[in-house]
Amino acid sequence: MRRALVLLSGGLDSATTLAVAREQQFDCFAVSFSYGQRHAVELEAAAEIARSFAVLEHRVVPIDLSAFGGSALTDPGIAVPEAPTAGIPVTYVPARNTVFLSLALAWAEVLGVRDIFIGVNAVDYSGYPDCRPEFIAAFEKLANLATRAGVEGDRFHIHAPLIRLSKAQIIQRGMTLGVNYAATMSCYQPNTRGEACGRCDSCRLRAEGFAAAGVTDPTRYARA
Amino acid sequence: MRRALVLLSGGLDSATTLAVAREQQFDCFAVSFSYGQRHAVELEAAAEIARSFAVLEHRVVPIDLSAFGGSALTDPGIAVPEAPTAGIPVTYVPARNTVFLSLALAWAEVLGVRDIFIGVNAVDYSGYPDCRPEFIAAFEKLANLATRAGVEGDRFHIHAPLIRLSKAQIIQRGMTLGVNYAATMSCYQPNTRGEACGRCDSCRLRAEGFAAAGVTDPTRYARA
Repeated sequence: MRRALVLLSGGLDSATTLAVAREQQFDCFAVSFSYGQRHAVELEAAAEIARSFAVLEHRVVPIDLSAFGGSALTDPGIAVPEAPTAGIPVTYVPARNTVFLSLALAWAEVLGVRDIFIGVNAVDYSGYPDCRPEFIAAFEKLANLATRAGVEGDRFHIHAPLIRLSKAQIIQRGMTLGVNYAATMSCYQPNTRGEACGRCDSCRLRAEGFAAAGVTDPTRYARA
Repeated sequence: MRRALVLLSGGLDSATTLAVAREQQFDCFAVSFSYGQRHAVELEAAAEIARSFAVLEHRVVPIDLSAFGGSALTDPGIAVPEAPTAGIPVTYVPARNTVFLSLALAWAEVLGVRDIFIGVNAVDYSGYPDCRPEFIAAFEKLANLATRAGVEGDRFHIHAPLIRLSKAQIIQRGMTLGVNYAATMSCYQPNTRGEACGRCDSCRLRAEGFAAAGVTDPTRYARA
């Protein structure tokens, strides 16, 4: 059995990515990050999803990106936009996926795991630069220059199986693989009861995805 | 005045790198990492060096790489070699410089700083893959794909001014720039009094560097 490490935020995309890795016959480790995010309740979702796919081990790594700030997701003083904005939105977290993949790489090298899965998507997404195919390709190249394993020819592969799918295609794929989307958390600003706002970019993309997929949206939304 | 962010471990190389950045007329921020290293006393050295070069701000970012282990520097169960070994030594910390540069990138982007200095060296070094010019070049490329700044054309530059210098050349350079090497800590396994072992790879390279540079070695060594 091959082994893989899956970055698991607790959202719809990463849950589907874990399901895809399992379908591809990988025994999976999962890693989440407690990074000072506004929506830390996503970590409870990640734990439930990890259990449902029987991962070998699920680790939550603390790395406080809110100490740097600079994003609506890590700085309570910057509001989450509730309407589409031009360009890269303020929910962009500086270097987030670079930091997360770097830490995943560190753990993977120690585990002897060479396959790393990440649920980035460059179709129905918020326009973050670190979700694009060229970023993933550059990170894979870096990983094989940076590490003992890479240098010794035991190469890392960064898998981004959702990168060119629409949100509707992702949901359809996940439904066939048994993902319980009711357990996932996509909202950038859920309330204390774990209910989604229904207005942020992430809620909008998710709701449109369920509609386009013809799948009943299981999300628990806060009442207006 | 241009501003830069310098990765400052507290060792000889990073102290010299900070001096070089100051010489190049950069106002400097400095970042160190408390990563579960055996030689955490180096952080006190980093603080003293940061003060001596009047940095704008010195941050110590906690990121516990000892939770992953896999290195003599982060796992007390793996001994630090006291004689040269073949290949990449067990003091290699998986993905360390990738993690550190990623976190530096995150802070730099928020600060509006686009010049990042790192004191890697590929001449008199321990053979770590993430100290080589090709690694630095790959990280710079990644940084400009990963970030809002990079995508918007406000490019990051990763400076590694020591990368092709011998240890003796680094020391000679630092002496002309006023580095107080007595304040730096290179040893992988200093004792509780902050004295160097004199036997590890890092001590060996440092001592040979002072000898070759014709500079009195100011290191405080533990008595045998």
